[in-house]
Amino acid sequence: MVLEGPEASGKSTQCQLLAQRLGAMYTKEPGGSPLGIRLREILLARDGEGEWLPLSPRAEALLMLADRAQHVEEVVIPALAAGKWVICDRFTPSTLAYQGAARGLDPWELEQMSDWAADRLEPDLYVYLEVGAAEAHKRRPRPADRMEEQGEEFFERVRSYYLRASLGENWMTIDGLGDPAEVTDRILAGLRSRLAPLPQEHDATG
Amino acid sequence: MVLEGPEASGKSTQCQLLAQRLGAMYTKEPGGSPLGIRLREILLARDGEGEWLPLSPRAEALLMLADRAQHVEEVVIPALAAGKWVICDRFTPSTLAYQGAARGLDPWELEQMSDWAADRLEPDLYVYLEVGAAEAHKRRPRPADRMEEQGEEFFERVRSYYLRASLGENWMTIDGLGDPAEVTDRILAGLRSRLAPLPQEHDATG
Repeated sequence: MVLEGPEASGKSTQCQLLAQRLGAMYTKEPGGSPLGIRLREILLARDGEGEWLPLSPRAEALLMLADRAQHVEEVVIPALAAGKWVICDRFTPSTLAYQGAARGLDPWELEQMSDWAADRLEPDLYVYLEVGAAEAHKRRPRPADRMEEQGEEFFERVRSYYLRASLGENWMTIDGLGDPAEVTDRILAGLRSRLAPLPQEHDATG
Repeated sequence: MVLEGPEASGKSTQCQLLAQRLGAMYTKEPGGSPLGIRLREILLARDGEGEWLPLSPRAEALLMLADRAQHVEEVVIPALAAGKWVICDRFTPSTLAYQGAARGLDPWELEQMSDWAADRLEPDLYVYLEVGAAEAHKRRPRPADRMEEQGEEFFERVRSYYLRASLGENWMTIDGLGDPAEVTDRILAGLRSRLAPLPQEHDATG
């Protein structure tokens, strides 16, 4: 299962809470493998003058796809093969939202390449965590990476992408507002209706 | 113009000699941009036990393509736009030889993605530096990177790819054996017959 959504929508918290409740593996992109950790460092690298390392939209997309290829082969596929549930923080839709809709790369080409990078692996379900435009704006973190320092329009394109994509048939939209444990309950209720049977649930205290 | 060929075929030396003679810009892949330098570090990275950083064939290919995307946008296109000749040590054919023919990734998919990474930029001419199987074997460097430590069969697949690709119409095969200055003369003679007019030639002493 993949959790998607904009910055600070609570994705990472929810992925971890869900993994705990379902005894599942939590992982994330980018940065879910040793290669991914190094690629994250590149995405956050600045030169001597404090400028971001020059990175064209295509190069940025290809780094994300390299991260995905390694993550799928080294982490996700072995976990699935061992019979584990995998809960992943971001996957192909993030590439289509950020490098496609927001940076302006062709979504069809990007999707083809992302499918190739992931060796055609697809999750059972994408969950989109929706917090509303106003709340998303309020939660937007202070610029700390090259995505976060983008302007309002960039994030509107990301949000529009998610609103459109989440109408797809292997998507589920969950209201991400409110107490994190309640949001987890909502996601679990959604999963039960869509993906039964779930792994045996553990209680919230782990 | 792109120079291609296996390890230690004299490509880098010839690229530099040619750039000097033609007053052209010399550049290379991977590693021709600040991003490329960091990606080369990843390709050469080992973990605490001295093992290579885990890198699937797809992830390796995508790193090479990220390097290409940045190199083309940041280095090659601005140089061409300024009216310079550009002489590049490796380009798409290296991806098709090493990640395609040798690592076994689908060549058609790789070529599509490489064309995308390069924003459809193609050189006037590919020059294949041929030194023969025996000499290529003799010159093979001691394993110092993850390509070089591959077995004989890997390099035979690389060589087969080049022999086949170099029959293409925008290719020229040059005998790479002998004194480097003579090899440069052969390449220049070939370029004059294929790409007239060349930039004014400087003498060999620069």
